[in-house]
Amino acid sequence: MPTKIILDCDPGHDDAVALLLAWGNPDIELVGVTTVVGNQTIDKVTRNALSVARVAGIVGVPFARGAERPLVRPIETAGAIHGESGLDGPVLPEPTIALDARPAAQFIVDTVMASEPGEITLVPTGGLTNIALAARLEPRIIPRVKEVVLMGGGVHVGNWSATSEFNIVIDPEAAAIVFGAGWPVTMIGLDVTHQALATDEVVAAIAAVGTAPARFVGELMEFFAHAYRDTQGFDHPPVHDPVAVAYLIDRSLVRTVAAPIEIERRGEFTLGMTVVDLRAAAPDDCVTRVGLDLDADRFWALVVDALTRIGDPER
Amino acid sequence: MPTKIILDCDPGHDDAVALLLAWGNPDIELVGVTTVVGNQTIDKVTRNALSVARVAGIVGVPFARGAERPLVRPIETAGAIHGESGLDGPVLPEPTIALDARPAAQFIVDTVMASEPGEITLVPTGGLTNIALAARLEPRIIPRVKEVVLMGGGVHVGNWSATSEFNIVIDPEAAAIVFGAGWPVTMIGLDVTHQALATDEVVAAIAAVGTAPARFVGELMEFFAHAYRDTQGFDHPPVHDPVAVAYLIDRSLVRTVAAPIEIERRGEFTLGMTVVDLRAAAPDDCVTRVGLDLDADRFWALVVDALTRIGDPER
Amino acid sequence: MPTKIILDCDPGHDDAVALLLAWGNPDIELVGVTTVVGNQTIDKVTRNALSVARVAGIVGVPFARGAERPLVRPIETAGAIHGESGLDGPVLPEPTIALDARPAAQFIVDTVMASEPGEITLVPTGGLTNIALAARLEPRIIPRVKEVVLMGGGVHVGNWSATSEFNIVIDPEAAAIVFGAGWPVTMIGLDVTHQALATDEVVAAIAAVGTAPARFVGELMEFFAHAYRDTQGFDHPPVHDPVAVAYLIDRSLVRTVAAPIEIERRGEFTLGMTVVDLRAAAPDDCVTRVGLDLDADRFWALVVDALTRIGDPER
Amino acid sequence: MPTKIILDCDPGHDDAVALLLAWGNPDIELVGVTTVVGNQTIDKVTRNALSVARVAGIVGVPFARGAERPLVRPIETAGAIHGESGLDGPVLPEPTIALDARPAAQFIVDTVMASEPGEITLVPTGGLTNIALAARLEPRIIPRVKEVVLMGGGVHVGNWSATSEFNIVIDPEAAAIVFGAGWPVTMIGLDVTHQALATDEVVAAIAAVGTAPARFVGELMEFFAHAYRDTQGFDHPPVHDPVAVAYLIDRSLVRTVAAPIEIERRGEFTLGMTVVDLRAAAPDDCVTRVGLDLDADRFWALVVDALTRIGDPER
Ligand SMILES: [Ca+2]
Ligand SMILES: [Ca+2]
Ligand SMILES: [Ca+2]
Ligand SMILES: [Ca+2]
Repeated sequence: MPTKIILDCDPGHDDAVALLLAWGNPDIELVGVTTVVGNQTIDKVTRNALSVARVAGIVGVPFARGAERPLVRPIETAGAIHGESGLDGPVLPEPTIALDARPAAQFIVDTVMASEPGEITLVPTGGLTNIALAARLEPRIIPRVKEVVLMGGGVHVGNWSATSEFNIVIDPEAAAIVFGAGWPVTMIGLDVTHQALATDEVVAAIAAVGTAPARFVGELMEFFAHAYRDTQGFDHPPVHDPVAVAYLIDRSLVRTVAAPIEIERRGEFTLGMTVVDLRAAAPDDCVTRVGLDLDADRFWALVVDALTRIGDPER
Repeated sequence: MPTKIILDCDPGHDDAVALLLAWGNPDIELVGVTTVVGNQTIDKVTRNALSVARVAGIVGVPFARGAERPLVRPIETAGAIHGESGLDGPVLPEPTIALDARPAAQFIVDTVMASEPGEITLVPTGGLTNIALAARLEPRIIPRVKEVVLMGGGVHVGNWSATSEFNIVIDPEAAAIVFGAGWPVTMIGLDVTHQALATDEVVAAIAAVGTAPARFVGELMEFFAHAYRDTQGFDHPPVHDPVAVAYLIDRSLVRTVAAPIEIERRGEFTLGMTVVDLRAAAPDDCVTRVGLDLDADRFWALVVDALTRIGDPER
Repeated sequence: MPTKIILDCDPGHDDAVALLLAWGNPDIELVGVTTVVGNQTIDKVTRNALSVARVAGIVGVPFARGAERPLVRPIETAGAIHGESGLDGPVLPEPTIALDARPAAQFIVDTVMASEPGEITLVPTGGLTNIALAARLEPRIIPRVKEVVLMGGGVHVGNWSATSEFNIVIDPEAAAIVFGAGWPVTMIGLDVTHQALATDEVVAAIAAVGTAPARFVGELMEFFAHAYRDTQGFDHPPVHDPVAVAYLIDRSLVRTVAAPIEIERRGEFTLGMTVVDLRAAAPDDCVTRVGLDLDADRFWALVVDALTRIGDPER
Repeated sequence: MPTKIILDCDPGHDDAVALLLAWGNPDIELVGVTTVVGNQTIDKVTRNALSVARVAGIVGVPFARGAERPLVRPIETAGAIHGESGLDGPVLPEPTIALDARPAAQFIVDTVMASEPGEITLVPTGGLTNIALAARLEPRIIPRVKEVVLMGGGVHVGNWSATSEFNIVIDPEAAAIVFGAGWPVTMIGLDVTHQALATDEVVAAIAAVGTAPARFVGELMEFFAHAYRDTQGFDHPPVHDPVAVAYLIDRSLVRTVAAPIEIERRGEFTLGMTVVDLRAAAPDDCVTRVGLDLDADRFWALVVDALTRIGDPER
């Protein structure tokens, strides 16, 4: 039985790949896509999500627009990494599907409450504002959600500061809510995703799929490669977000350990840090896990497989 | 035309008086009552609100249960002030009205969106969790709300610490959201409400009304007087919350000034402080105001008047 | 028997007046003057102190240069209030006395250790860096110092932010050390010193003294008046620092109360706030006091008297 | 020409080994030993330093007692690791040498100012209170000190919390002063010293020296092993402090890189963290370096060699 997920994202180059992987892989059932301010404004990332849906031929999946700003802090976007549109590189087709009328948090609450307990997995690949709002708006979702598998944070490395990762630092209050809610949380952070590099071999394998969606991904990766080279000195860009989806397809892809995780909301040099305590074995009641290593080859094989399955959808 | 308000409260002795004042005064139209964790747990304050509704004979007003916990911080209640039930003193009758099915934040969003712009005033007299959630869940309510008049904070005085007031300090993140949302906010803080003392004359005037609701208020005041004497050394208890309602009935009761207001979320000795900058005249675009003085006699006359109008409802 | 003080200052217009008051008043024995970065750099305030000494004809008093920067934070000076020199307005004569070879903190330690227990009072009228360093360098001075009477902080008002006063906020770590050291501390803050206004009558009375030092003070006050009018909207400038000295001459000038005082070092909007807890009577072992009101007329009479006694020193 | 060092320590089991290594190695000239509160109270660690001096036969080296408490924070000691005495395990002989009369910070200032520029290296192996005080008391020492090589902090690991190491977290303000002073600082943190394990082979090699000081070290290591096993789950105890000394004997022992280092003084979960930014090559003017790896075998060979050279001093 496929894993039913709500993908909560801010496309975003790597979010787009995550969406394609979730749609193309038969072990994932995409029950909804929600958007959240992050890589760009909510207007832009929402439009991007719908454009990607058209590229991938996604049908029958509700898309809901979410938070336009973080809970408490001012908006911070990542134009230097994702460009003016949030998804610079390819031509973005006009969306053809209409948004759900509900705000993302409401959509999440309704979907979880209408499903069986343990049926829905939340997969946030942007800031955690929507998820936090949903948990506080309707706390009964907390024991009903199967688990939260998120891209964000880092144990030993940051990208937005020496100690913080973008998805967490843009809304650390939301992150504190999500990590501390009580549901199982698996954090796929930079320690893992800095191993998900779109190397030349990866890019070639994607190109070899030969479809329009694969070309679209190729153009995304080309822009992304330049952005990461120029801003962070990477030879090849880390494609963070699909790793969270891939982990749900095959847990053996990522080595994880249980560990207490706290979100630093006050530090001068550590704001938004995911403080993971690896000094000792986690207590038995610890519900948070952290990813530490990735089997990159098998991860990329899943991405190529999903693109192959998606083929060339009618548009 | 009466002022349409949603009273967002955590009854709480003074919340109960605020509810009676709002119901009994003809210049206020109570379009909804929402509850929020604060003086006691959400279960207790919600039941208390419904009990007060029965005492006052409130009918035709939706009551919605709200947040069971603050946005980020752990729950802190005020049992030492409001007792084990949150409304110790009188016998609390069994509620007779049923709750609205929606969470408070959803109720607030729906009510504001279904009303005309500028029609609804929000009157929070507890922690600001519900109001903050509503503003973040559906930001379109922000320009539609007429104003927020809240009991909370203090310029020169605190009650939960040297610098903080209970309603703000229990959820400073929510307070930061509400004060910074962009809608007009008037803060009725301790500078004002420490002048709203239930003196012997006040208690006598309430008793003289001679009705069951007045007796109920008398019993509330008796417990409240003991609690404030024992915990904070007051000769007579300050009855905070109805001042926010009274200000909407007659703005000449409270002297207010426009001033920038920030909520301290990080301080060691100042957590939850409402930092009001009175050093210079506020800039023209300042939407926050702070109350500084109360005409206590006329305030209490309004309370007595409301009780008189409520009379002895059939129960 | 006069009170033996070390004046630790950052002249600074009001520091200059404090120095003149301490030198001219027979109930004060100036056993040393130390300087500290604050209103201007240590080079400038040290030179200013020596210039004032020449104006006032101060002889036989050691002057020691102190900290060039706060303990931890970067240097912040107050050029907008005190001008480029730190003592703009009058012509500053070339100093004629040489500095003590020791750093201020060392001078303070040596002086206190060489005196009887309870003999020396410390009077800081700038940032508290020197005093903090002395207390940590040689903790045995703490029980030997009679008391610390300082100008700094504010209960209900700030000047550098809504909640902070300059002397405290420029080195809050030092302030935390000094207020928490265990010796008696009396804080003469803005609540008091905003009552020490150099009104037209005050300026006229000083002018009427008719001496060169009085003219010097007159020129200081003229610059200070413009600076306070332009930057903080005062009709007449508050002359903070001499109030600390005046309090040692006549304690009835300032109404003080015992109260716990904490220094906020972490707040976003409250950094450097002197958090004074006035909610209840201070515990018996409380060693900190806060000034709340000033008898301004008698304060200024002391200043005029000191100038009169100083007369026209040979230069 | 040997490296002239002042060892600033809080013995402490590993401090004792550091002292023995500094005394016994011909490439180090011990120009002074200063003590600082840390592993135990200043009284205890000072006595311990003098006892170790007797064990090792140290003569002709001034010992000065330093800070009895951190700059701002309350005292925190490490009795669980170092025992009630701070040096539990062996019998501690009565000291035979007298302390220098000056406080440690004064001793450091005097020694550095009396030496040539670039002559003195400071080697702190405890909290940084003394060094910070010296730098602020007499800033002219900053360009005169050759470098500071300290044991403290950690890039990817903590021991006092998930992110902090004891020497830094007990006085983060002092650490911020020392790391930011402008002199060259090399941080030998837990990333390095957790590789300096007193394994069975190490213990055997020390025992094989066969002298009284070697037996003393053996008894220290035995206690230390139990303490680390019981409190932190180590199979063999990390012997932190002598690595800083060893690095000065042979820099090839420790792999270091230049990197900006900030001390977190405000974080809730990160207080006292040494935030090392390894994301990119350090700027050219970066004066801070961080150790990342240790050649443990050659490190321990230096310790054994020093013990061999010390031999069996007359006591
Ligand atoms: Ca993303
Ligand atoms: Ca209330
Ligand atoms: Ca001053
Ligand atoms: Ca040590």
